[in-house]
Amino acid sequence: MKIIVDAFGGDNAPVEILKGCADAEKEFGVEIALSGDTEKIKEVAQKENIDISRMELIHADDVFQMETQPTELLKGGRNTSMAVGLQALADGKGDAFVSAGSTGALLVGATFIVKRIKGVKRPVIGGVMPTAEGPFILVDTGANVECTVPMLCQFAHLGDVYMKNIMGMKNPRVALANIGTEKTKGTKLQVEAYEALSKLEGINFIGNIEVRDIAFGKADVVVADGFTGNVILKMYEGVAKMISNEVKGLFTKNLLTGLSYLGVKSGVDAFKEKMNYKKYGGAPIIGVRKTVIKAHGSSDAYAIKNAIKQAITCVEGKVAEEIRDALSEEQNETVTE
Amino acid sequence: MKIIVDAFGGDNAPVEILKGCADAEKEFGVEIALSGDTEKIKEVAQKENIDISRMELIHADDVFQMETQPTELLKGGRNTSMAVGLQALADGKGDAFVSAGSTGALLVGATFIVKRIKGVKRPVIGGVMPTAEGPFILVDTGANVECTVPMLCQFAHLGDVYMKNIMGMKNPRVALANIGTEKTKGTKLQVEAYEALSKLEGINFIGNIEVRDIAFGKADVVVADGFTGNVILKMYEGVAKMISNEVKGLFTKNLLTGLSYLGVKSGVDAFKEKMNYKKYGGAPIIGVRKTVIKAHGSSDAYAIKNAIKQAITCVEGKVAEEIRDALSEEQNETVTE
Repeated sequence: MKIIVDAFGGDNAPVEILKGCADAEKEFGVEIALSGDTEKIKEVAQKENIDISRMELIHADDVFQMETQPTELLKGGRNTSMAVGLQALADGKGDAFVSAGSTGALLVGATFIVKRIKGVKRPVIGGVMPTAEGPFILVDTGANVECTVPMLCQFAHLGDVYMKNIMGMKNPRVALANIGTEKTKGTKLQVEAYEALSKLEGINFIGNIEVRDIAFGKADVVVADGFTGNVILKMYEGVAKMISNEVKGLFTKNLLTGLSYLGVKSGVDAFKEKMNYKKYGGAPIIGVRKTVIKAHGSSDAYAIKNAIKQAITCVEGKVAEEIRDALSEEQNETVTE
Repeated sequence: MKIIVDAFGGDNAPVEILKGCADAEKEFGVEIALSGDTEKIKEVAQKENIDISRMELIHADDVFQMETQPTELLKGGRNTSMAVGLQALADGKGDAFVSAGSTGALLVGATFIVKRIKGVKRPVIGGVMPTAEGPFILVDTGANVECTVPMLCQFAHLGDVYMKNIMGMKNPRVALANIGTEKTKGTKLQVEAYEALSKLEGINFIGNIEVRDIAFGKADVVVADGFTGNVILKMYEGVAKMISNEVKGLFTKNLLTGLSYLGVKSGVDAFKEKMNYKKYGGAPIIGVRKTVIKAHGSSDAYAIKNAIKQAITCVEGKVAEEIRDALSEEQNETVTE
C-alpha cells in the first residue's frame, strides 16, 4: 500500500510532515510518496536528518496558498503539491492522499480530480471527535453549507459506513442534530429530514439528538447540514479550549496550586488523552472514489502519522466500496431527489 | 415598583419561588405579587416558614404544564398562574413578570397578552451568558427558528439596547454568528444579513464572529437566527457541563486528589462564579411592551432572586422605551421588509 502525502500542506510543513511520514513508514511498514518541490524536500530532510531514502518523490513546483479561492486548484493551482498529489492518486499511483493544506481546495480537488463515487450527491468532510464516552463522527462539518433532505440521508450512510468499517462499530447510533428531541423540532429541513431518515433501510436511526447531548456521546453518527455541523464543531472546540485554558490557569498560580497539580496529574493526563482529537487522525473526505484525508492545519508529526494510519485503515476497510453498495441500496428505495 | 412572579412555574415551584421572592423583597425593597392558587401559596409559606405577609396574591386555579402546546396558554390555559400573571402585567397591576415555567408558553403569552412594542416583528428570547472575558447576550436563543434578514437586524437592536441599558455597556460590539469571519461565509441568510447589519445606524457592527470565538468574549451581542442560536446555547451548556463533570471526577478519586482540590479550591470557586450564569438572572423576552423574564426551569431561590433583580433593572433601564426609539429610527432607514 502506498500513501501519497502533501509535503507542503499546513502550518508546520514541510518539517513536521516529513517527520510524520518517516515515523509512519517505520511504524506501519507502509510505502510513502511525497508530493512537492523535490529539491526543497531533499534539502529539509538532510538538514533535519529525516530518512526519506525509501520514499517516492512526486515533483510539484508550487504550494497552494491558504487564502486562495479553493476552485483555483483546478485552474492556476494545477502544479501545486496538493493538485499533483491528488492527480497521482486519481492516476493509480497510490492508494490514498493526506494533506494538511486548505480544506476547501482539498474538497474541490477530491471531488473533481479523484471524483465522486457513483450516486454520491456531495462528498462530506467528516469530523471524528471525542466525547465523554468515546468518539463519534459528525457529517457534515462544513463542506456543504446549504443542504437538501436527500443529501442529509446520504450523509447518514457515509457516516454509518465510516463508523462501521473504520472505527469498528457494529451498529452505530445515527442521529440528526437538532434543538430538541421531538420530531417537530427544528426548521423545515430538520422536520423533513427526520421523516426521511427514519425510513432509511440499514440505518439505526435513533431520532434527533439535542446538541447539548453530543459531548456526552449519545450518538455515534451525528447528521447535520454543513452550516450547523460547522457551528457544532467550532463551538465544541471553542468552549473546550476556553475551559481548558481556565483550568490550566488554576494550577499555574503559585507553588501550592503547582503541587496540587501533581496530585491530579495522572487524571489530567488521562482526560487529555481521552479528549485528544489528534489520535483519530484527520477529517476524512467521504464519498470520493479513493481515500482522501484532511489533516488539521496545525498538524505536527504525531498528527500526520495518525492521519496516515487513518488512511491505511480507510483503504483496508474498503470504505469507497461499502459506500457504493450502501448507496445503490438506498437508490432502490428512494427514487426522487 | 411591583414585580409579579409566577408562583407555580418551574421544577422547584412553589417552595423555591416563594423563598426567592422573600429574599428579593428583603434585599431590594421591591413589592412582590404572586400569581397562582392562593390557598396553596399560603399553605406552603406557612409550612416552610416563608414570610409572604407583604406580598399581594393574585389567584389562578391552574398551572400550565410543561408538555402542553404553548399556544394553549391563550385558550384552555387562560386560568393558569402564568396567563393570569401576564394578564395582570398587561392590565398595569405590576411592572414586570417573572416565570420559570414553559418557555414557549411564556413567549406566546408575552407576545399576545403583554403585546409587542410597535414595530417589533418578533420578540426574542435573549440569553445572557458568561465567557472568559465577561458576559454577552445571544439574540435569539430559540424563539424564532426560521428568520429573515430584517428580523436579524431587529435582533441586533434588541440586544444592543439590552447590553447598554441593563448591562451598562457603552458601545457593545455586535457580531453575526457565523462559520467564518469573511463576509461571504455562511448561508444566504448570513451573507445578506452581514450586508444589512453593516448598514445599520447606531449599531457597532464588528462583522461575523466565528462561533469558536464566542466563549472568549469577542463580541457583546451575538446575532443569530433561533435555530443557530439554540445550537450555540446548547453546545455551550453541553460541552461546559461535560468538561466540568470530568474535571470534578479528577478531584474525587482518592485522598491525594481530594487534598489537591484544597490547593486549587479558591481558584475553582472563582472560576465557578465567573461561569455561573445564574447571576445574570433569566432570559429576557425582548421586544414586548413590558418586562418579562424567563427564569431557568431548574431555578432555585437564588436564581429567582436574581431574575427579580434583573426585572427591576429592566424596568429602571426603560428597555421597552429605548427599543421603541431604536426601531423608529431603523424604520426611517429601511422601508422594505
